[in-house]
Formats: sequence, C-alpha cells, structure tokens
Amino acid sequence: MSKGGILKGETKQSVKKRHSLISTKSEWSSSDEDEGAQPHEKAIAAGQPNPPYCVRNIEQNAFGRREIEIAEQEMPGIMALRARAKDDKPLKDAKIVGCTHINAQTAVLIETLAALGATVRWAACNIYSTQNEVAAALAHAGYAIFAWRGESEEAFWWCIDQCCTPTATWQPNMILDDGGDATHLMLKKHGAAFKNIKGIVEESVTGVHRLYQLSKAGKLCVPAMNVNDSVTKTKFDNLYSCRESIIDALKRSTDLMFGGKQSVVCGYGEVGKGCCQALKALGCVVYVTEIDPICALQAAMDGFRVVKLNEVIRQVDIVITATGNKGVVTREHMERMKNGCVVCNMGHSNTEIDVYALKTPDLLWERVRSQVDHIIWPNGKRIVLLAEGRLANLCCSSLPSFVVSVTAATQALALIELYNAPNQRYKRWTRDQSRRDPETREADVYLLPKKMDEYVASLHLPTFDAHLTELTDEQAKYLGLNKVGPFKPNYYRY
Amino acid sequence: MSKGGILKGETKQSVKKRHSLISTKSEWSSSDEDEGAQPHEKAIAAGQPNPPYCVRNIEQNAFGRREIEIAEQEMPGIMALRARAKDDKPLKDAKIVGCTHINAQTAVLIETLAALGATVRWAACNIYSTQNEVAAALAHAGYAIFAWRGESEEAFWWCIDQCCTPTATWQPNMILDDGGDATHLMLKKHGAAFKNIKGIVEESVTGVHRLYQLSKAGKLCVPAMNVNDSVTKTKFDNLYSCRESIIDALKRSTDLMFGGKQSVVCGYGEVGKGCCQALKALGCVVYVTEIDPICALQAAMDGFRVVKLNEVIRQVDIVITATGNKGVVTREHMERMKNGCVVCNMGHSNTEIDVYALKTPDLLWERVRSQVDHIIWPNGKRIVLLAEGRLANLCCSSLPSFVVSVTAATQALALIELYNAPNQRYKRWTRDQSRRDPETREADVYLLPKKMDEYVASLHLPTFDAHLTELTDEQAKYLGLNKVGPFKPNYYRY
Amino acid sequence: MSKGGILKGETKQSVKKRHSLISTKSEWSSSDEDEGAQPHEKAIAAGQPNPPYCVRNIEQNAFGRREIEIAEQEMPGIMALRARAKDDKPLKDAKIVGCTHINAQTAVLIETLAALGATVRWAACNIYSTQNEVAAALAHAGYAIFAWRGESEEAFWWCIDQCCTPTATWQPNMILDDGGDATHLMLKKHGAAFKNIKGIVEESVTGVHRLYQLSKAGKLCVPAMNVNDSVTKTKFDNLYSCRESIIDALKRSTDLMFGGKQSVVCGYGEVGKGCCQALKALGCVVYVTEIDPICALQAAMDGFRVVKLNEVIRQVDIVITATGNKGVVTREHMERMKNGCVVCNMGHSNTEIDVYALKTPDLLWERVRSQVDHIIWPNGKRIVLLAEGRLANLCCSSLPSFVVSVTAATQALALIELYNAPNQRYKRWTRDQSRRDPETREADVYLLPKKMDEYVASLHLPTFDAHLTELTDEQAKYLGLNKVGPFKPNYYRY
Amino acid sequence: MSKGGILKGETKQSVKKRHSLISTKSEWSSSDEDEGAQPHEKAIAAGQPNPPYCVRNIEQNAFGRREIEIAEQEMPGIMALRARAKDDKPLKDAKIVGCTHINAQTAVLIETLAALGATVRWAACNIYSTQNEVAAALAHAGYAIFAWRGESEEAFWWCIDQCCTPTATWQPNMILDDGGDATHLMLKKHGAAFKNIKGIVEESVTGVHRLYQLSKAGKLCVPAMNVNDSVTKTKFDNLYSCRESIIDALKRSTDLMFGGKQSVVCGYGEVGKGCCQALKALGCVVYVTEIDPICALQAAMDGFRVVKLNEVIRQVDIVITATGNKGVVTREHMERMKNGCVVCNMGHSNTEIDVYALKTPDLLWERVRSQVDHIIWPNGKRIVLLAEGRLANLCCSSLPSFVVSVTAATQALALIELYNAPNQRYKRWTRDQSRRDPETREADVYLLPKKMDEYVASLHLPTFDAHLTELTDEQAKYLGLNKVGPFKPNYYRY
Repeated sequence: MSKGGILKGETKQSVKKRHSLISTKSEWSSSDEDEGAQPHEKAIAAGQPNPPYCVRNIEQNAFGRREIEIAEQEMPGIMALRARAKDDKPLKDAKIVGCTHINAQTAVLIETLAALGATVRWAACNIYSTQNEVAAALAHAGYAIFAWRGESEEAFWWCIDQCCTPTATWQPNMILDDGGDATHLMLKKHGAAFKNIKGIVEESVTGVHRLYQLSKAGKLCVPAMNVNDSVTKTKFDNLYSCRESIIDALKRSTDLMFGGKQSVVCGYGEVGKGCCQALKALGCVVYVTEIDPICALQAAMDGFRVVKLNEVIRQVDIVITATGNKGVVTREHMERMKNGCVVCNMGHSNTEIDVYALKTPDLLWERVRSQVDHIIWPNGKRIVLLAEGRLANLCCSSLPSFVVSVTAATQALALIELYNAPNQRYKRWTRDQSRRDPETREADVYLLPKKMDEYVASLHLPTFDAHLTELTDEQAKYLGLNKVGPFKPNYYRY
Repeated sequence: MSKGGILKGETKQSVKKRHSLISTKSEWSSSDEDEGAQPHEKAIAAGQPNPPYCVRNIEQNAFGRREIEIAEQEMPGIMALRARAKDDKPLKDAKIVGCTHINAQTAVLIETLAALGATVRWAACNIYSTQNEVAAALAHAGYAIFAWRGESEEAFWWCIDQCCTPTATWQPNMILDDGGDATHLMLKKHGAAFKNIKGIVEESVTGVHRLYQLSKAGKLCVPAMNVNDSVTKTKFDNLYSCRESIIDALKRSTDLMFGGKQSVVCGYGEVGKGCCQALKALGCVVYVTEIDPICALQAAMDGFRVVKLNEVIRQVDIVITATGNKGVVTREHMERMKNGCVVCNMGHSNTEIDVYALKTPDLLWERVRSQVDHIIWPNGKRIVLLAEGRLANLCCSSLPSFVVSVTAATQALALIELYNAPNQRYKRWTRDQSRRDPETREADVYLLPKKMDEYVASLHLPTFDAHLTELTDEQAKYLGLNKVGPFKPNYYRY
Repeated sequence: MSKGGILKGETKQSVKKRHSLISTKSEWSSSDEDEGAQPHEKAIAAGQPNPPYCVRNIEQNAFGRREIEIAEQEMPGIMALRARAKDDKPLKDAKIVGCTHINAQTAVLIETLAALGATVRWAACNIYSTQNEVAAALAHAGYAIFAWRGESEEAFWWCIDQCCTPTATWQPNMILDDGGDATHLMLKKHGAAFKNIKGIVEESVTGVHRLYQLSKAGKLCVPAMNVNDSVTKTKFDNLYSCRESIIDALKRSTDLMFGGKQSVVCGYGEVGKGCCQALKALGCVVYVTEIDPICALQAAMDGFRVVKLNEVIRQVDIVITATGNKGVVTREHMERMKNGCVVCNMGHSNTEIDVYALKTPDLLWERVRSQVDHIIWPNGKRIVLLAEGRLANLCCSSLPSFVVSVTAATQALALIELYNAPNQRYKRWTRDQSRRDPETREADVYLLPKKMDEYVASLHLPTFDAHLTELTDEQAKYLGLNKVGPFKPNYYRY
Repeated sequence: MSKGGILKGETKQSVKKRHSLISTKSEWSSSDEDEGAQPHEKAIAAGQPNPPYCVRNIEQNAFGRREIEIAEQEMPGIMALRARAKDDKPLKDAKIVGCTHINAQTAVLIETLAALGATVRWAACNIYSTQNEVAAALAHAGYAIFAWRGESEEAFWWCIDQCCTPTATWQPNMILDDGGDATHLMLKKHGAAFKNIKGIVEESVTGVHRLYQLSKAGKLCVPAMNVNDSVTKTKFDNLYSCRESIIDALKRSTDLMFGGKQSVVCGYGEVGKGCCQALKALGCVVYVTEIDPICALQAAMDGFRVVKLNEVIRQVDIVITATGNKGVVTREHMERMKNGCVVCNMGHSNTEIDVYALKTPDLLWERVRSQVDHIIWPNGKRIVLLAEGRLANLCCSSLPSFVVSVTAATQALALIELYNAPNQRYKRWTRDQSRRDPETREADVYLLPKKMDEYVASLHLPTFDAHLTELTDEQAKYLGLNKVGPFKPNYYRY
C-alpha cells in the first residue's frame, strides 16, 4: 500500500468514489466520537495481528441491536429468505468477504448469510457511512466486523485487508462487494487466495464497471455477478425508490410547494422516469431532456415535452439531473436560471452538475441548512443547490427499508447461486490455463438468473398481501413454461 | 397443396390463426362484393400463369389512392425514412416477398420500400383483412399485389404462391412476413429458391414462435429478424397503444362510464400495464392477477391490488384478459360474475376467455350490436362479451397510424439491415454445410440491432416537436459511448 | 302562434336553441320514416281535438319497450327511488307537463313519476331528438306522449300545446322543462292555468337563464327549481362525464393517439377540468386558457401551463373549447393552426368556435365522416372540425346512463319537493297581489335543497358497492349535525 | 381575569385550543431561553403601563430580519399587493389589533398592512408558536409586538390586552384574529371600544365557529369576515397544501415507502381529497370512508373504494383522518390494526383519533423520534402514532410560503374591504338600536366578496408565469359579465 493511502494500481476514480459521500467532516459527525485515535491503531499497538473485530466502541452494542431488530421488521423479504432457507444451509462452509455500507439493514443481511451457513468478515466500503452502534452489535454477536465512521484512508484499507488476508482459519471463497475495493485489494495483494474465490457479487455501478473492465482486459479469473442490473434492483432501487425520494429530498431541503412548479428532468432512464412521474403527480409541469431517441419517445408518449436544456432553463423552478453523465448542468446554464431555482442531482455521479464552476470569487456560497447551499450572484440572484451536487438522496434520511430488503435478498441469492452452481454454469479461468478461448474471456460478468430475480420478487409479495396466480398444468404446457418459472425470456423488459 | 386447403406440414395452429379474426362472414362484409367468383379464378380461366396482379376491382384505385395519401400524412416516421434514404437506395435490387395485412398503412410501407430501391410482390396474411380499394390503388400503380377481402382458403395460398414462385424475372431474396405463412410456403414448396433468401423479417408473435421452432429444429437456414420484440414495437404497439385502445374498445361497444367501476386485468405485461394505467386514470378501481412474481410486484408498487381472479370475480364490473394464456376466464368464473359484467380480451390469443364453454343450451346469446354479445343466464343475468373473446381492438376502428408508422419503419429498417449486413454478422447455413456447430444452430433469429431501434425512434420525434440533446465529445468519452449511439447495453429494459 | 313558427314573444335565442342539435336533416335520419306527413296532421284531419297521444308509429312499441328495459338496468338510482317511494306516492294527484328529450332514459323517468302517483303529458324539447320507438312504447303503455323525430316547427308547438292546454280532465299543476319552451308557452298562452302550477323544474342552462330573466323582470309567479346547478348534476354531468366523453369524442371521430399530443383546453370550469384530467392521464401535454384568476390558479396548481391561446396555437394538435363563451377560437387562430389540428367544442354553446368565419370561398369543406369535417386551406393545410363546432358529445353515441340516472333522480326529487313543500318554503306571487316586497321578487328560482342532493347521491352509491359510514349520536352532537344530513353548509364547494 | 388563567366567560374549548399545538414543553423548546422570567414581568416591575413592545430578546432582531427577507422572496402575492397598493394607502388611519401566530410570514403581512397605511398592535394566538427572532425584528422596526415563545397563561392574556386596551393614542378600529381570543377579550373587557371596531377578520375554523355562535346569540354587533371559507383559502390551504403535506409528514416521520401500501382516508372533503390524490399518485391503494353521500359518490367516481373503517382496518398500512369529527379512530379500531400500521390526523381537530383510549397500563408508549410514538401492545404489536393525534402537519417543518401568501393576501384584502366598505354593505348594530330586524341579526358574518377572492388569485398568477386571457367587450356582453369580474355566481363550486 502506498504512503499516500492509494493502493498501487488503484485509480483516481476509485479514490474519488470512496470520498464521494463526504462534504466536510463536520457535517457528518454529530458527536466528538469520530475524532481522536483510529481504533485499529490500538489493535496494532497492542500487537494483535488478527483481532477478532475492530469497531469504535463495543459498548454501543445494545442500541445497535435494537436498530437491527427494527430493521428486521421492515425487511420482510430477506427475513422470509432466512426462515425458508435456514434448514437447507445453502451457504454451508461459505467464507464471505463483505465490503459494503454498514448499517442496520446490512446487519440483517449479514445475520441472514450466517443463518444460511456462511462465515463472514466484513469491512466498510465508505469511510463515513458506518453506523458505529450497528458495527458494535455485530461484533458483540461474534461477527468479524472491521469498520467505524470516520476511518482514515489508511484504516480503510487496513480494515478491508483484515477480511481478505487468508489465515489458518480463514480462506475466503466468496466476495460481496460494493464499489470493487475488496475485489481490487484481493486481486492485487492476495492473488493466490483470489484463485480460491468461487464468485464475486457486486452491486454498485462503479464496481460493475470495474468488473467489466477487468473482464475485457482478461484479468478477471472468477465469475462475477452484476446484481446492479438485476430486474428487481433496477426497477425498485431506481424507478420506484426515486419516485419517492425526489419528493422527499426536495421537500425536506427546501419546503417548496410542487403544485404549479416548472421543472426539468435531465435524463429519462429509470431514475428520470421515477422523478417525472412523481413531480407530474404532484402538480408540476415537467420537461425532459434526453440524448437517447428511444427514451425521448417514451417521455413524449408519457406526456412530457422533450426539450434541450437551454430552451427552458430561464423559466424552470427546479432542475434535476438523472443522467449518469458529466457536465449536464453547466455554469452557463446556471447563469441563465431564475432567482430561487433549485438544482439537484438524482443520478449516481456527482459530476452531472458542474459545481466546481460555481466556486469562483464572484459568487457567494451561503449554507442555509444541512445539505442546502444558496449560491448568490452579484445581482442578488440565488440558486439553491442541494447536497453540493452529490446525490440528492443525501437530503433524506435513508433508503426505504423495503428497497434495501430487495437489494439484500438479491445479494444473498446471487451468493447462493454462485456458491452452488455446477462447475460449467459460470466460466472461470486461471493464469495456469495455457489456452483460453478469446471469445469467452469477456463472459465472466453475469446477470442474476431470471429465476432468482423472480424468487426475490416472490419473497416480497406478502408485504403487499399480493396473491400470485398459479398456472394449471394445461396452461403451462400451452405457454411452454415450467409452472414455477422462469416466466419470461431473458430479453423481456418489464 | 392439399385438397382441404391445408398445406402439407402446416399445423392446425396456423390454420386457426389465418381465421382468427373472422367471426361470421356477414359481419365483415359491408357489401356484396365479397360474394361471387374469386378473382384469381378468372386469371386461371384466362390462362394467365403469371398475372401482374390480382385484386377484386382495379377500378377502385382512385379511392384507395386517397386513403393512402391520408395515411401518408399520419405516418411521419416512415415518410421521413423514405425522404432520407431514397437517394441511397439501400434496397437496390432487393426482391421482397411480402405477406401482411393490406391496408392504406401497408401501402405506405410498400411504396417506401420501392422508393428505397426494392421490387416487391405482395399477398395478404389474412383472408378478410384486405382493403380492396388500397389493393387496387397499389396494383394500378404497378405493384404486384395478390389480395382481396374474402379470399377462399385455396385463393389465399394461390396468392402467396404468386409471390414466392421464382420466375425468369423474379428471384425473391427477402421475405417480410406476418404470421409465417410466406416463410412456410417458401420453405416447403420452393426449397431451392429459399436458399437465395438473404433474410426474413417477421413481425407477429405467432410467426416469431414458428421461426424459433424452426431454428430449434435446425430447419431455419437463413437469418431472421424478430421485430415483434424490438423496443419500439413492444412499448408502442403494446403499452402505449393498449393504454388507449382499451378505453376506446370498451366505450364504443358498451358506452359504459369508467368512473367508479371495479375492474380486474389478468396479466401485467406491457398490455396489462397499459390497460391498468388507463383504467386507473379514468377513475376505475383496478385489480390485477399475475403468475409472474416480478410483474406482480410491479403491479403492487404501481398501486394495484394483486389478487386471484376468484377473490374479486363476484364484485367486478369489467374483466380484461391480457395474458397470452388460455383458459384464464372460465365458465366457472363467468357463473360467478354479476349481472352486466363486461368481459373482453386484450391479449393476442383468442383462447384467454373460454368462449366455447358458453355455447351450451342453457345460455342464450343475444347480439346487441356489432362485436357485442349478451350471454343470458336462465335467471336473467347478462354477461357482456366483446368480440366473442377475440381481440377487443376489433371493437375499435383501427390501430392509430402513429403506432403503425413505428412498426412499418421497424420492418423497413430490419429489411435494410439484413439485406446489407456483412456476411458474418448474421449466421446462416445450408444443408450442404457438412458440419455445423451445434451451439450456433439456434442463433438464427435475431433482435433488431439497438442502433436501428434508436433510429426508428428518432424518425418519430419530430411528430412531438421533441428536441434531442447531443452529447459533447467530452461527455461521450466519459460515458464510453459513440455520440450517435447506440446509447444503452442490450439488456437495458427502458 | 305566428306564421313563421315563432310564438309571439319568443326570442330568437330560443328558436336557435330548438335547432341547436341539428346539422342537416339527412345526417340524423337513418330511415325514410321522418319524411312525409307530420303525424299530428292526421289527428287534426281526423277531427280529434284531444288525441290521447301522437307518435310516428305506434307499431314500434315492442322494440321501444326493450330499449326501456335495458335503460332500467343501467339506471339503478332512479329505479331505487321508484322502489322506495312507490308506496308513499309522493306525487299523488300531481299533473305534470313534461317537455324534454324523449329517449329510453326519459321513459324510465316518466314511468317512475307515474309510479309515484303522477299523471303526465309529455312533448319533446327538440324537433330531432325523439326516439320514435320509445315514444311508441310509452304511448302504447297509456302515456300521453306527443313527439316524433323530425317535427315541423308548427308541429313542435302543437305537441307542447297538447300538454299545456287545460281540459276537463287535465289541469296541469307541475312543469318539468328542458329549455323553457313549455314554461314559455304556458305563461304566454295559458296564463290563467299557469297560476295553478305549484312549481317548475328546469334542467338546462338556457332554460335556467330564461327563468332568472323572468324572475328579474318580475314575471315569474311560481317557484322554479334550478336543477342545472345542483351539486350532483354539476359534478357528474360536467366533470365526470366530460372526463370520459372528451376521450370518446376525439377517438371515435379521428382515431388519433393521445400520447404525446399537445392540446389546449379553453376554460377550466367543471367541463374544462374534466377534459384536462383525462387528456393528461392519457399522455397529452395540456395547456389551459382562462379568464377567471381563481380557475387559472387551480389550473396552475393542477400542473397545467396557463397561457393565452395565441401563445400555443401554432404548436398544438388539439384545441378544445369549454367556456360557454363566444368567439373563443377565431378564424385568425385557425389561420395559425398547424396541419391536422383537431378543433372541437365541449362547452354548451355552439358559438365558441367561430365556424361561420370558415365559410369563405377560399376554404374547402370536406366531410370525411359523420360529424367530422376537414377544412382545407389553399396551401393544403387541413383543420379537423368536429360536429361543426357544436357539442362534440354528438360524436359519441350518448351520455352514459349513469349520468342520466343522476339527472333523472334529481328532476324527480325536485318535483317531489316543490309539489309537497309547505306553503311558505318557496315564495310565489300573482298579479292580484297588491303589494309585493320588491326584495323578494327575484327569489323565485331556487337551488335544490342540499338534503335532496344528498339523497340523489345516496341512491347511486349501491352501484359502486360504496358503504356509507353513519354518525354516532355523540359525533352528530359534536358536529352540530342531524345524523341523516344535510351534512354541509350551503356554501360548501365539494 | 380570573386566577386560573381563564378569562371570565371563556369556554373550556377556547382554552383547549390555545394549547392545542402543545405536546410537552421540552419538545418545542430548542434552547433554554423559554425558561426563566416572563418578559412582561420585567415591564410590569419597571412600572411601564404601556410598553412600546414586549419580546423575549430584542437583540435577536438581525437574525429575524433575515428570516423576514427570505419570506418576502417566497410570498410574491402579498408583496405584489404591497407594491400595487402602497400609494393608495387603503388602510390609512386603520388601527388594527392583530392576534395570530407570529413568524416570518406573519411579519410580511404586518409590514404590508403598515405599508398600506395601517398602525398595528400585535399579540400571539398561541403560547408556543412565536418565533422570537421575528418578534424581535418587528419590535426593533418599531412595531408594537407583544409575544414570545413560552408565554404563561397569564402573559398570554396580558399580551392581547396590550393590543386591545384603548389609550389616548390607540383607538383600535379593526381586528385580525386567529381563534377568536382578541375578539373575545375585546368584547368582554372593552365593550365600549368594541363598538368602534369597523370589522373583524377571522381565519380559523374555531374562530369562525365562535363568531357564528355570537351572531346567532345576537351578541355580535360588528361585521365579521370569515376568510376561512374563502375560495382560495379553502382550495389552497386544504386541497393543494394537504396533497403535499401528507406525503411530507408521513415520509419525514416514518420513512415509509408509499408504493403498494394500503391506506384508508377517513373523510373526503378538501383535505381528504388532497390526501387521496397524493397517495394514489405515489402508488398507494386508497380506501375512503365518508358520512356524506355526495362526497362518497365523488370518491367512488375518483376511483376509490368507499368502505366502513371496520371493513379494511385489519389490512391497511396507513390510517389518515380528515373529518373534523371526533372518535373516528377508536381503541377498538386500533386493536384490530396490523403491526406497524401508521395512524395520523390531517383534520383540524385533535379529537379524531381517540388517543386517550391508548393511555392504559397495558400499552407501552415509546417515543421513537420527534412527533412519532410507537404504541406497543402486550403481544408486541406496534402502532405508529404521529404527533400524538394532533395535526400531522406538525411533523413537517412548516406550511409552504406560497399557501401562507395566499392566506395573508386574503386577510389583507378582507381588512381593506371591511375598512372601506360603504355603510350599508355590511350590517352592524349596537345595543342602542331599539329595534333590530330579527331576520338580519344572524347576517353579520360574511364571506369575502368574490371579486376579492379573484384578486387574491390574480396576485399569485405571476409566480406560475400564468397568463390570463381577457374578455373582449363583445364576449363580456354575451356573458353578461363585467370584463374585470367577478366571473362566477356566488354558488359556483370551483
């Protein structure tokens, strides 16, 4: 590991990602506890090479446990999976390296994986997102957790390394990753052990991107599952979740009234669709910008004017980006916005709004409340910027537990699938392999099998008291389907 | 060809399909003109082996031409394609066998293909769906049209054969099919000529199904394009079009008021989604039945109760099927419906409602208006059945021209793609081929390349005065995209 | 009665109203039966001074009866009233002059009034709107019906006069009017008998307007009930009904696709609100014009851009008027519309679109189907005009029975209320009255008491299986309400 | 004033009202400043009989001024009124007693009244709702403000009395009241001065109720304006505002996901309509309960099942009251709710949910966050109760400024109207009057003239860039309207 806290081979991008949720430390620290010595330093000082866990304060475990219990109530899908599969132990002998945000909802996932037979070691994928109480509760219950809020750069990698390093009793055979850092470290530093991995499950856009790049470069030797693009994930985490969080984010941060407001949504993918639907439903006039003619046509048919941003920038009250692109809202656009215009980003990238272009001496920044800045022009015009152009969801408290339950169940099933799949189902290779088929080299990142997607969905139906109809034998035969699915061809779009 | 009008090897299913739009002849014949001698008999009697065309009455051409001109105005997308590509002549020397419904909108497609360089010979894919005036106009303009309303079974195949049979001046090299009959006849009867086909474009569910079966059986030797599942087709022909036609079909046939009506939609695919959205928007209470947990979860998140049909059958005012399945609404269900309940089918199959089970002596059928029957129980209870359980769209006049324009542009582009593709892009084989790779045998039915889908969409944006945003060079690089698309991975769901 | 068919004192306006549904006779006559001798001429020729009825063809009664039976099924509210009140006979000895459209739904009202104890004599309020079969069925059942489709001007007044003229056995004491013609004739020609009238129930905008004018002029001596502005009437006949009929009218006449269409609705009253809601729900982009700032603010808060017509006239695909005003869409506007723009009127007045300005030699009118004209400009531009600018509802078959049931129940209850009200509740005066209080002179037109409105609504709830909650004694006391209503102050807006 | 802090003649109800926003002091006090001596005690101790103002801490004025400036930006309507009328000074010599909540938005109203010529003295209508900084800013600017957060009961009345007591330089002639306390005190304690009042403007439901009772009892001698029922107030403060605040309140307090949730809304008035519309729009399944058949029929036509609460209480996830009634949700209902059910009140009364019935020893109350309690049953079932059954809006930060702007403009115009109206327009009487017409005694509470309502609306149109259409002379004549309004009859329902 390099001095500067950047692992050799690590890209600038991944560093940026690691900090992407951070504004200024003070915003995120509600207490003094993040200050002072990093917990791992004590462990190191104490000469403990392999501590069983490392958290901020193990005494907080009771409060954390209560948070976990509340989360269990709100995550019926993953709890149903735990109940149904705990006798089968489909993850028996699985040794999972986990690297994700660590909060009450993650704890429910971790304890589910354990109930299904797995052993885990877990680190945080973001230096500021750990809920210390939850980490304490997990550690107290015997899980090998290495995470706290306010990790230093060096501590961040130390924690992940605690999970990846093989020992006499710990030979990891699965990775559950969010952003690709555990995969990256394992590949770079523990190459030999990496070959024993049966599969990687990756959930983030960034991590998936890194996996596809590894695959293209011929460097990915184990099968990986892209759960970021699974149906339930896409539709629930994007469409349905954003339909609600855009309203929540704008309301909490600005108290604006939606009725009659003119707004423009840049991008009509799942996120944009969710935003548009909600804004329209609450009485906004909504314009859409798009680069893709198919999405543009959908926007038109759904009743939105498709425009270039410049055509409406002078008249709108709200500007929302949902493109994943960069430089979508420029300084030039912001020059033309009217007084009081609210600008926020719902896409995954923090580059959509050119925030840096606003950091010029002529503009005054005024923090009016947490996550809300007024950018004040010399003539007094104010632009209201949410979350400094980072994900506006940060203005809400958190993702709905239901969405997280869907994601967690998807992750668990992806682990089960990769762990139990017959040898031929998912291709892998090692450097020993003298001759690989060049065509199959890129085939190492997979989507979750449809049947698993369907199973995740079925776990969540009871929440809505939804009753599924079963095919009769005759109907199944007529349709050429198995009665228990999968029910659709792979190209089905939902 | 067999005596009974069934081509050797033809399945019962395809025969049923050919008649599937037919109720009783009298309903569809608004005049006497369908009666009397079949036009081709005159041709045969006159000893004309290769008549240049065969229509009911060439004198009707002026009226047909006017219909075509009106259709041109309403199909901006296909007309834009004609304008843009007519100098390039991308279908130069293409010789296309066409077998589709023949109406004004088809005529716009045919004349576009010709403008792009193709020669065509065209027959009807349904014995009752030809607009005689349009056929006359096309014939009068010099196109080789073989079609009239009210073809006999034997005439039906004669017409197709006129298009498929190779002659000194006609060696077909492309097929545009709707239902698979031209493909079937060509394969069965003109096997040698079939090998010269560069590609097949098929648009119907049935035809696509037959192609996949041929492919699986190793009998498909030329590449085929499944345009039925292209994005624009799926979303526009299903979701958006059904959103409107369900309202239209119910209103025209029954004059019912939607506000406050309880309805159940069986199936939450694209068609079901469109129906539910429209009914909810107009004030119906909507229930959904589903077999697929993913679609069921979507229905729940969209605000619909997901139930088994039996749970609500006693209380609903409207029952709509949109499953593609059989026996979805049974006699038993209908026994339990309340007086006045309207039953209709929006799926593609006419088997969804078990209409045959209603043909029992205890029930009285009363035709109350075209496409509307009252089924009367001994106790006086009436069920209102639309279109005898066939597609309820039949209760409306026709598909919106806009939707047809999307479909026609898709077909034209699929023809262009297959006709011009480099040799390796789409796999083909012939019986001569001594050794085929068994793995690639099934790969012969393709989806339209995304770029083509995007092009179809872009052709239709001007209709809505929709303005597309263009990527800057920097943005394209950031996203790893070509500035002109394609913009999405193949698995993108829209 | 004057030669020209205009009753002395009759205004031009009322004549226009009488013909307002008429385009050209041929459109409305589906058979030859409207031609030939007027039925009443035979009666007159036969020297029958007081024929028991006068209809086109009494032989058609069986078919008419069946139509009435179907209507009964679709009008649960009025049938419930019939069932509940038939023992009380609240209209015992009432002698009602009726003058309304005569169709199956009216027949259900007439037979309900009879079941409640009334005797009636009935004429048509429009010379073309009578369903002859229904009139025959009523006459055959013993009702004194004087109406047929295609009445001459002179026959029109003869028929009404048959109802109004007192005889030994017929002293009318109630009037149910639609447009004010029976009231007008009675007042002008049978002034003495008019004094015996206990009350007038009027349902049309025009008729109500005439009543208010009479009242202002001090000429109205009997109490009248304005049911046109009763809550249930306003909301159901306007908001809810138009929400559906705008879709139906546009679809049936033009087959256009709503998705993505730009439309402008002139006027955001109940009718405009219904139109906007439906169009938006089906994917239109909707603009609104308004003169009233309150309605304009509602439109804005509901998510519609409020514009002047000129701002959007060049870009819209659909123009809908719903103002009740005149000259809302002018020739100048139509000059600027784009090719294919559809123009229709949903307001009650046929003056909203300046159709006369289109009857200039430079423009070509082409009738493309019933109720649809293309107006063709010299440069080929076509405007699609529905119903020649008259009510676009004419493009649909008819009002939903449910709406008519609400209206009919309201009329019946208004008759019951006026007939049974204690003397002081509704003010009346006669010319004998030496000294009237000038302040109360205008008070003679009343709105239906709220309790009656509530009763009409309650009659229709079972249709929707809607279950009303009852106040406990304690709650009623807390709210200061009677447990059975009325539940709202008079100024409540719903 | 009585010892117990209850003014003689004051009802229990008004006392309750005064505290109705209070839960426990600690919740509302974010700092220690509410503790300690009441400011007025110092004034009294200092022997100041008529202090110019009395606030918590005048030093906070700068921060308060900034809050006011922000509010000015968000209240375009009232600011437009200030700009338009400041030269006319329509409130010249008006001396207004104000008694309302005191926050930044109120300050904008106060300074507008002053700009229009009025002098004011202002007290708070609630002992906990004053923003101390704003009060300081107003006092610092020279306004006679008597209010602070955390007033004692005695201080509450002392403050109001400072405004009502006539002095050499202060003879109040107008009252702007919210809840009726200033009116009550003036009437009871300063009867002589009360006769000089030209008019009372009252905005709250409670205050209006008290005025009607006074009027009925013949004790109201000055005209009062009920602005609570003005159109803009009703529609904006209820329908549009609640459409947004229900979403905000539920989201902020529980982070629940709306999609697929089953909810029941008790009451389908303006508030209930707003709630239903928003919940449906975000994917909830919504049931409605109603006592009024007209509102029930509206609910049905709008697509909601109308049920009795008991029919759905076991299955719903969310229960919302919007009735203004008492005992709508009982302990018995809550016994039957499922685990996790959220219960909240959007009506104006805190009696809708029988919270007291939950205060039994068998149930455990757990405060999970501000304004959110879990009520825990012995079997572990949890009910989530918002704001202890008081207005759920308390869970959001505040009313949107836009709504407050509408209300403030309405209040200002009502003051202007009453202050400037010709003598005969609004009836008044005094005890001297020997003979009053008994019929007009109750007529003393008025609704705002429609023209004023329209003016308020027009002030707010520019916010939405909404452009009003003007009638031509010809059109105005045709409609019988003045070109500048009013545009609708008084009974128009919008």
